[in-house]
Amino acid sequence: MKDQDIANLVNLLGQQARKASRILMVASDQAKAHALRSMATQLESRKTWLQDENAKDLETARRNQLSPALLDRLTLSDKALQTMITGLRQIADMPDPVGSQTATVTRPNGMRVSQMRVPLGVIGIIYESRPNVTIDAAALCLKSGNATILRGGSEAFHSNRALGQIIQAGLKEAGLPEQAVQVVDTTDRAAVGCLITLTDYIDVIIPRGGKGLITRLAAEAKVPLLKHLDGNCHVYIDRAADPDKAHDIAVNAKTYRYGVCGAMETLLVHEDIAPAVLPRIANTLTSKGVELRGCDKTRALVPQASAATEEDWQTEYLAPILAIRVVNTLDEAINHIAHYSSGHTEAIVTEHIGAATQFQRYVDSSSVYVNLPTCFADGFEYGLGAEIGISTNRMHARGPVGLEGLTTLKWVLTGDGQLRG
Amino acid sequence: MKDQDIANLVNLLGQQARKASRILMVASDQAKAHALRSMATQLESRKTWLQDENAKDLETARRNQLSPALLDRLTLSDKALQTMITGLRQIADMPDPVGSQTATVTRPNGMRVSQMRVPLGVIGIIYESRPNVTIDAAALCLKSGNATILRGGSEAFHSNRALGQIIQAGLKEAGLPEQAVQVVDTTDRAAVGCLITLTDYIDVIIPRGGKGLITRLAAEAKVPLLKHLDGNCHVYIDRAADPDKAHDIAVNAKTYRYGVCGAMETLLVHEDIAPAVLPRIANTLTSKGVELRGCDKTRALVPQASAATEEDWQTEYLAPILAIRVVNTLDEAINHIAHYSSGHTEAIVTEHIGAATQFQRYVDSSSVYVNLPTCFADGFEYGLGAEIGISTNRMHARGPVGLEGLTTLKWVLTGDGQLRG
Repeated sequence: MKDQDIANLVNLLGQQARKASRILMVASDQAKAHALRSMATQLESRKTWLQDENAKDLETARRNQLSPALLDRLTLSDKALQTMITGLRQIADMPDPVGSQTATVTRPNGMRVSQMRVPLGVIGIIYESRPNVTIDAAALCLKSGNATILRGGSEAFHSNRALGQIIQAGLKEAGLPEQAVQVVDTTDRAAVGCLITLTDYIDVIIPRGGKGLITRLAAEAKVPLLKHLDGNCHVYIDRAADPDKAHDIAVNAKTYRYGVCGAMETLLVHEDIAPAVLPRIANTLTSKGVELRGCDKTRALVPQASAATEEDWQTEYLAPILAIRVVNTLDEAINHIAHYSSGHTEAIVTEHIGAATQFQRYVDSSSVYVNLPTCFADGFEYGLGAEIGISTNRMHARGPVGLEGLTTLKWVLTGDGQLRG
Repeated sequence: MKDQDIANLVNLLGQQARKASRILMVASDQAKAHALRSMATQLESRKTWLQDENAKDLETARRNQLSPALLDRLTLSDKALQTMITGLRQIADMPDPVGSQTATVTRPNGMRVSQMRVPLGVIGIIYESRPNVTIDAAALCLKSGNATILRGGSEAFHSNRALGQIIQAGLKEAGLPEQAVQVVDTTDRAAVGCLITLTDYIDVIIPRGGKGLITRLAAEAKVPLLKHLDGNCHVYIDRAADPDKAHDIAVNAKTYRYGVCGAMETLLVHEDIAPAVLPRIANTLTSKGVELRGCDKTRALVPQASAATEEDWQTEYLAPILAIRVVNTLDEAINHIAHYSSGHTEAIVTEHIGAATQFQRYVDSSSVYVNLPTCFADGFEYGLGAEIGISTNRMHARGPVGLEGLTTLKWVLTGDGQLRG
């Protein structure tokens, strides 16, 4: 397609989304839940067709020699479909965030002031080749009353188109506008450039993917992004830590899963407790195949650790590698985190109430834990029911973003003819 | 100054602000209130010096033939200073939003989840030649724990520099870092371009000024803007309105002050009630010197109205002019607002609960009123105690923005060694 044709296409999708969003904004939860349940039913009944469409993408992907990990993510296996179906039904059952109001304040002149939760409007999702995002993101946006424009990776083109048809059929069955969820029907990369600058019709873009994609989008976007970059997460073992908890938390934070953004990447240990905890933690991690890189004081206690460089403190490994640093004080740990952290999730292990309070108050990340491993960074674990992603933005939503993060508040005032003097 | 020198200067201000913000973020309310009260005292004791500095700006402004209205805004009169002093003391006395926590939820595994209110970080304020903004904005940002970089209009250069010195003296007296509030000490416009792209050191920019300035900044900014554009505000008189209330609300909404962003710019009237209310409202407005422009049905009832054009529905007059349209239904009013409103503030006048509910639910503006004039759009009136501005953003803060809008939430989780399975 020519660039102008793509611009026209994206513009049209935007106009249609805005129109649909005005209906969705005030749609009943009954209708939204009906649509989500209907999508689930169709994922079951049209499974063969879906997997045939998916096979086209897989064939191309194999021809292009995609890595086994990427092929795995791309595959609409029975299990992957079942997870989507369960997810749709769970989201359908969640309470509708839209229309709820905050406590009402009555002003001296008698007028009543409150805030009503309302959808953000139109949300653009830009993601890589994971067809499950098509369903998850569309479902969360729909439940929160937002229209959605989905732009998935080109490797999942046929799969996403098929899933889009199922989504639209579900919307139609529930009497909702089909254009409430639209899949961008071109693999041309220029479409992304159009989406991120379409300020008239798109209220927020949620990019899901690697740091490279998100940094690039952030540099060019005019539409606000609800984003998270990397998760360079820290665990600090305080002087007053319980050694057993410290061991278990550090090991869990690193090894729960290496590839998640809440995985611990640097371990900080107070020098007074380091001899008592560090060798044991190091040995457990080594036995699990984790490579250790440490400061000089660490290496004096952990002979298997290689020397950490400046780059190690900055790195989100997403791999079985851990940087370790011994610090003299709680302040030094807080300063290390302020300098190197990406503002995602940090934890302190301590039995001392003052240290815990100071750490939670002074550490400026989107989630700050006491006596918990950083790998709890997940909307389900926080009780949000579901999450669209984790935000390291300071404005709007920070940390795991659930349905509420996809909404905003408007002021509603009710009076009886009060005038301003 | 050369562009590179300006870039270096702004970068340095940013670095210093970030450093100061880390201290301010956890400063006690006692210290912040002390600084604000000390600023108030110094505005009193150094009045002569301030007015001498202000006189330099006024002399240049007169030489450059600034309008009387602009000269008036620029003048640090005794009265203007007294307003600033009162404002500083009021803000000092307000409750500190920082450090408060939301209700705590205990998860099934026993870990406790809550959100703590924390400052946004570093806030840039870009404004026109109103020295009072220097004090007001710095005070609100300081109270909410944010570091501030202030860039006022070049016409107020000496006034702002002098006010900046008083602010920094107040910070110093309270033991807070002087660089918590910095005035950009150059009138070069290139400094603005640097500020709005300094994403490493500035978390949010609040522009205050005309639509032209804000549109220009929005087009080039990389730092998120907390902004409002124009206020094309509507009052809709429903079929079920009380005619007396309708008259008083419409007149107040238009004439409270013509130049405020909450002023009514278009009046919508249901055709069933138009004959009973419109001539009376029109006559009152005409007697107050308001020019009326109406649709055909309006003109049949209001002979003094000229014909409204498409442009009238789009215009924020900020002047004694009003557009009037007779509509057939509540839906037509809602659709007119959806099409033409700038999303600021709209009101319905009605005694019918269904119409009121529908209007507040369906109208997608930052404030939606029942039986109140749109000119109530002001943080003080809403009970916020003070306001930094009114946001028509959808994300983060919408409507009048007080101290809470200058903060964000971080997740704080506390456990006792729970692990993720």
